[in-house]
Amino acid sequence: MFEKILVANRGEVALRIMRAARELGVKTVAVYSTEDADTYPVRYADEAVCIGPAQSNKSYLVMASIIAAAKNTGAEAIHPGYGFLAENAEFARACADNDLVFIGPAPECIDRMGDKSSARETMKMCGVPTVPGSDGCLDTVEEAAAFAEKVGYPVLIKATAGGGGKGMREVHDPADLAAQYKAARTEAGAAFGNDGVYLEKLVLRPRHVEVQVLADDHGNAVALCERDCSIQRRHQKLLEEAPSPALSENLRRDMMKAALKAVRAVDYRNAGTIEFLLDERGQFYFMEMNTRVQVEHPVTEEITGTDIIKEQLRIAAGEPMSCAGRVPFTPAGHAIELRINAEDPEHGFRPCPGTVTRFEPPAGPGVRVETYLRPGSRISPHYDSLVAKVVVHGQDRAEAVARAKRALDEFVIEGIATTIPFHKRVLDNEVFLAGDATTDFIETQMGDVL
Amino acid sequence: MFEKILVANRGEVALRIMRAARELGVKTVAVYSTEDADTYPVRYADEAVCIGPAQSNKSYLVMASIIAAAKNTGAEAIHPGYGFLAENAEFARACADNDLVFIGPAPECIDRMGDKSSARETMKMCGVPTVPGSDGCLDTVEEAAAFAEKVGYPVLIKATAGGGGKGMREVHDPADLAAQYKAARTEAGAAFGNDGVYLEKLVLRPRHVEVQVLADDHGNAVALCERDCSIQRRHQKLLEEAPSPALSENLRRDMMKAALKAVRAVDYRNAGTIEFLLDERGQFYFMEMNTRVQVEHPVTEEITGTDIIKEQLRIAAGEPMSCAGRVPFTPAGHAIELRINAEDPEHGFRPCPGTVTRFEPPAGPGVRVETYLRPGSRISPHYDSLVAKVVVHGQDRAEAVARAKRALDEFVIEGIATTIPFHKRVLDNEVFLAGDATTDFIETQMGDVL
Repeated sequence: MFEKILVANRGEVALRIMRAARELGVKTVAVYSTEDADTYPVRYADEAVCIGPAQSNKSYLVMASIIAAAKNTGAEAIHPGYGFLAENAEFARACADNDLVFIGPAPECIDRMGDKSSARETMKMCGVPTVPGSDGCLDTVEEAAAFAEKVGYPVLIKATAGGGGKGMREVHDPADLAAQYKAARTEAGAAFGNDGVYLEKLVLRPRHVEVQVLADDHGNAVALCERDCSIQRRHQKLLEEAPSPALSENLRRDMMKAALKAVRAVDYRNAGTIEFLLDERGQFYFMEMNTRVQVEHPVTEEITGTDIIKEQLRIAAGEPMSCAGRVPFTPAGHAIELRINAEDPEHGFRPCPGTVTRFEPPAGPGVRVETYLRPGSRISPHYDSLVAKVVVHGQDRAEAVARAKRALDEFVIEGIATTIPFHKRVLDNEVFLAGDATTDFIETQMGDVL
Repeated sequence: MFEKILVANRGEVALRIMRAARELGVKTVAVYSTEDADTYPVRYADEAVCIGPAQSNKSYLVMASIIAAAKNTGAEAIHPGYGFLAENAEFARACADNDLVFIGPAPECIDRMGDKSSARETMKMCGVPTVPGSDGCLDTVEEAAAFAEKVGYPVLIKATAGGGGKGMREVHDPADLAAQYKAARTEAGAAFGNDGVYLEKLVLRPRHVEVQVLADDHGNAVALCERDCSIQRRHQKLLEEAPSPALSENLRRDMMKAALKAVRAVDYRNAGTIEFLLDERGQFYFMEMNTRVQVEHPVTEEITGTDIIKEQLRIAAGEPMSCAGRVPFTPAGHAIELRINAEDPEHGFRPCPGTVTRFEPPAGPGVRVETYLRPGSRISPHYDSLVAKVVVHGQDRAEAVARAKRALDEFVIEGIATTIPFHKRVLDNEVFLAGDATTDFIETQMGDVL
């Protein structure tokens, strides 16, 4: 195992990684912007290095500063968390060039799976079902229009370098295609430095179901059941659960098999997620692969008894994963994650940075809170608005829902607006309670918050 | 299910019960002494009734006040927690006489199993092994001496109404018998209002291993694996774990079978614990039954995915337990509970009441904290010194130990002394780490804190 690693992230995921490292006896180095100097993860780390001012492109995205911090502190490896440089193959290469282990897959895998259209091609070749879509990027609006006519409207324009809904546009009416195509390219170029877009047939009323995978250098590759992330607002996940209420045992087995096909096809290593769209008839289609740990990984940890971050460290250190002997996984109970964002759901989820004047997270049986907040914490406008994750685990879905409500009732955050009231509404919604939510849940059930 | 229950307790267990009730949609009534008026459980309850001044015998032990509070608020049932009136058959009868459900076993069961010598007789009759001991109380020192000669020294003098180590004396030398016998009777009389004592052969270097049971009105009786509570100071448990590192699968099965024999012998209902001594050869002996929920119940919840308090409510309401279909239980992972007491382990575990000036409990994966404390809480000298329980769960014992250390490192309590430094030492002790701790662990390994 490593003696010391650097955590190239901030907020709750930085703390999550440091906790796993500490349990493994691994020392940690935090890197931080001046804005984050007083945050809990910076205090929690064994060492901390300031890498620049608040703006991400002057701190958390500056590869050279992060690599220098690792070399100067004697860290042997870098965990990128999610976001920032987590899916940046160039960063993974820079690590290798500097004799640092990148805790994640090989840069070739990030390239191949990170580029959405090449990932689709790879999946098609290995027999994983994909949504009917264009073979590669469509470089002109005419090509896009021709393809849309062929598969039929509605269609989805997606950024090939994309993620998090950026550069993604639905087109229901041919008359809107040209404008949406241009808007998608502009947005993609600004967000990812790559304005390539491709088209897919839009699957109506799908669920978002994803499979967590782990693979190591010892020939072990496991699928750790699925997560249902259908509760999304503008392609941003808000509530995730595991297992999916929509899956039979057979369907779960089939999706896990398909995910492992994808893993083997690219000789994948470390943690990753294969995201699928699941339609009403139980057909599933590969959407994309995330070549990193995800925000919602804790629900999988809860129902499988696995520590995914520790497994990432073991795999990156060349050790076998510790959970290989315990597959095939069957879910133990049910888990739900509620993303608590510093956003005001009553005003279009407008970000609400500010100072937390009172902070009492919930506790007790089956309640886990992942947060970097402490009483008095200041929430910066410079970063994403996720401030806490409430993760509940129960013997079944009904118990998990009851716990989630109980936990939200206990949660005291004063000084900022949060998504807690939104989650309370979801937990009382009959479609959600029936396990029937699809990705248009918010549009159809809670249109007022859109 | 009940609509409203009264919680006849305080501190962490009162909050634990209220959380379970809230998840079941059951309203709660707190009762409190003036000393506890500002505590979190009192605020957490839907209603709260003051039942007297600080002294327990003027508040938490006054049956009439508690029953009046239940009747006046329309509560249908009373949960006694542990301690106070939890094993008081008279209170269970008073509940029934007032048309209130006592959330626990029938008064006859409390009588029969609560009296240690009659419990021993019952176990002997149904074939559960017991430590060689006197048949009933020994009313004179001469009778005690004769019995000790017969089974051979060392012997243990125990209060027939006892618990928590009160009225219990080891005698290794015949010359000490008379003095210890008298002291035990005096202590038992003062503590329990019953000075009857009996003698047992002292099992040397045993482990304390106990089996959690649940039984309902629908014919279901289950054993939820065991807990190892060998880390004790003066018969007060300090750290508990599940499963026991000492048990093979066969031995676990045999102990669970023996525990269920005991349950059937007395037609037991609700939650209970059968405590055994386990000697070095794998022989186990019935010690006593606790006819209530125990402080250490969370470790069992963690490895079985069961909510024991909710099961108590279901059973008391006449419903079937929800976990009956999931037996026989095999432990899922490993759990450890650390009792954080407001005591100074560097000064003989002297109680340290006071005001908590800073309070930051640990969190993250596999860490559960049960506490009634909040920043600014005042710890009263009138009640027992347990202020928090840190419960950790990992995929195996090594992970649970690493998590426990990580959790204690994170835990910030300022303003009072606690047992945290003691637990850190236990978690670093080689005998403990090897899973070899017996009930003399503190004497032999940490004699300086005795």
